[in-house]
Amino acid sequence: MPDFSIGVDLGGTNLRIAAVSLQGQLLEKVTFGSKVSPRDRVIDEMCAAIQMLSDRYRGTGTLLGTGIGVPGIIDLHTGTMRKSANLPGWENYPVQAAIERRVGARIVLENDAKMAALGEQWLGAARGIANAAMVTLGTGIGGAIVLDGKIWHGMNGMAGEFGHVTLEPDGPICGCGNHGCAEKYASASAIIRMAREAIASGEAPALAQVADSDPEFGAQSIYHLALQGDEPAQQIFRTFGRYLGILLAGMVNVLNLDMFVIGGGVASAWDVFAPRMFAELRQRSIVYAATALEDRLRRDATGGDGAAQTDGRREPQTIITRALLGRDAGLYGAARLASGSSNS
Amino acid sequence: MPDFSIGVDLGGTNLRIAAVSLQGQLLEKVTFGSKVSPRDRVIDEMCAAIQMLSDRYRGTGTLLGTGIGVPGIIDLHTGTMRKSANLPGWENYPVQAAIERRVGARIVLENDAKMAALGEQWLGAARGIANAAMVTLGTGIGGAIVLDGKIWHGMNGMAGEFGHVTLEPDGPICGCGNHGCAEKYASASAIIRMAREAIASGEAPALAQVADSDPEFGAQSIYHLALQGDEPAQQIFRTFGRYLGILLAGMVNVLNLDMFVIGGGVASAWDVFAPRMFAELRQRSIVYAATALEDRLRRDATGGDGAAQTDGRREPQTIITRALLGRDAGLYGAARLASGSSNS
Repeated sequence: MPDFSIGVDLGGTNLRIAAVSLQGQLLEKVTFGSKVSPRDRVIDEMCAAIQMLSDRYRGTGTLLGTGIGVPGIIDLHTGTMRKSANLPGWENYPVQAAIERRVGARIVLENDAKMAALGEQWLGAARGIANAAMVTLGTGIGGAIVLDGKIWHGMNGMAGEFGHVTLEPDGPICGCGNHGCAEKYASASAIIRMAREAIASGEAPALAQVADSDPEFGAQSIYHLALQGDEPAQQIFRTFGRYLGILLAGMVNVLNLDMFVIGGGVASAWDVFAPRMFAELRQRSIVYAATALEDRLRRDATGGDGAAQTDGRREPQTIITRALLGRDAGLYGAARLASGSSNS
Repeated sequence: MPDFSIGVDLGGTNLRIAAVSLQGQLLEKVTFGSKVSPRDRVIDEMCAAIQMLSDRYRGTGTLLGTGIGVPGIIDLHTGTMRKSANLPGWENYPVQAAIERRVGARIVLENDAKMAALGEQWLGAARGIANAAMVTLGTGIGGAIVLDGKIWHGMNGMAGEFGHVTLEPDGPICGCGNHGCAEKYASASAIIRMAREAIASGEAPALAQVADSDPEFGAQSIYHLALQGDEPAQQIFRTFGRYLGILLAGMVNVLNLDMFVIGGGVASAWDVFAPRMFAELRQRSIVYAATALEDRLRRDATGGDGAAQTDGRREPQTIITRALLGRDAGLYGAARLASGSSNS
């Protein structure tokens, strides 16, 4: 009879709702498509599912709360969605009030990348790590900084905007008005842009062929070509790794956190971008070079994950690692935040 | 009869020791040259001055502690200077133990840029601002992040290494092994490098003339030329402002802090680099653009400093501003930390 909370992950493509026990056990998960549904229908489906899960598991334990992760910039004071690239029609919509009215209870609202970071910190890669950041590589780049187990919001909830850090001052223009943002190099849309450029140059015949024949041509198709040894596709992921490494090097220097977790759909291409990412980190971050050397030595010595304890005192080392919870990270984080155990 | 603490600022050029009251009043300040003195002589002078000030003001109040700011990377666990570009002979030296042995009391050791940030937060530009960062523009770039009134050290005290954030991936090589570090563009040594390059190009006759005739040719001489309208000198400060703006834009996006304080000797050239710095910030930081707009509107409306209160609630706004305490910031910060009032 576990106490439980409800986590919601509202994405541009899917709406997922789950009941999760206080111990982190997934009790039940419900999924809807959200891509083509109008806003009010998505809200209806979400509230009906929250009600259904709440009724079903109330018999077994206390409902501790409901947390909802949304893809966009939130005004935390008013519970309004300020801006969302992936949910047209939701801008300036008072999400929190609308949902609270329908479910008749308080909810907690948070940006989806921040929910994912809380999930990874609860049950995933950063379990037991109080100070960590998460970079979510999807269509764009999401980010979150967790300090002392809580989301660092900054002044008005905008902290962790890693995607729009300048990496090339004269690089390609970004939708935000800047040039050379991280998102222009280390995101799914950047991979597609670089592939289109390679195709246009006439020097990427395999990419050109897949782009012509695959109606779902995207980052994943380009990843598969890279795995098969296609040089232009591999070059794209080396560029991706280079800029992700530059971004991380700066963040390691500024924040000196114990761990940086790399998640999001594109993180599954880890094998093809990570070698270059680590090479850039070693060259470009004096803090990483100072704190990761021991890590590498210990890995060599123990074959372990570098998080070993020595002499009772944890040696300082920066760990850059993949997320473990995949798409469920945000659901778990939302449930965790709603349970009141992570008071951020 | 005020309680007091002793602050020490050990620089590459000067050693300064002060007694400061708990209320922030400078009771007495002593200065020595440290540039040519061997290490043990500097330690002797420092300890004698600490003793003298301690004896002198003990009659009037309780000595709350002694804080020492040093220019280098410190191992906070062992009180050892790990690395110092400006104090040869001090590397791997157990500063804290050596001083504690001689003065017969515990001291607190901290990096000098972090002490300066605590000083500005106590009595200077960031007074009353709980979450702020400080960028110190000197020979290199120092940095500190203050969260909730305390220095954010990160995992092992290296947080705030703003000077080695990559701003141009293929830029000039840095002593740290990276290319295009912030220090290569926004520091006194960067100004001199850019001036030498301009002179070598043959297109900066006034700079060439001053470099030939001024035995102390440096960032300050170049600043004076810029003030006099010399175009190549002005261009150097525009480049400086451009890259400082790029650095700050990234930090504003990542940290979303209330205030960024710009200090250090080169900050006195504010008039010639700040316009370009603000232009870059507006273009390159979506967080700055979102939070500084109100600031600009309010400035226009009130002529004030943008920190006005409206409707009882402080509007979120990012403030980028000059440090106020000059060279004394580190002394005040060291005294503050030693007094135990800033428990960082």
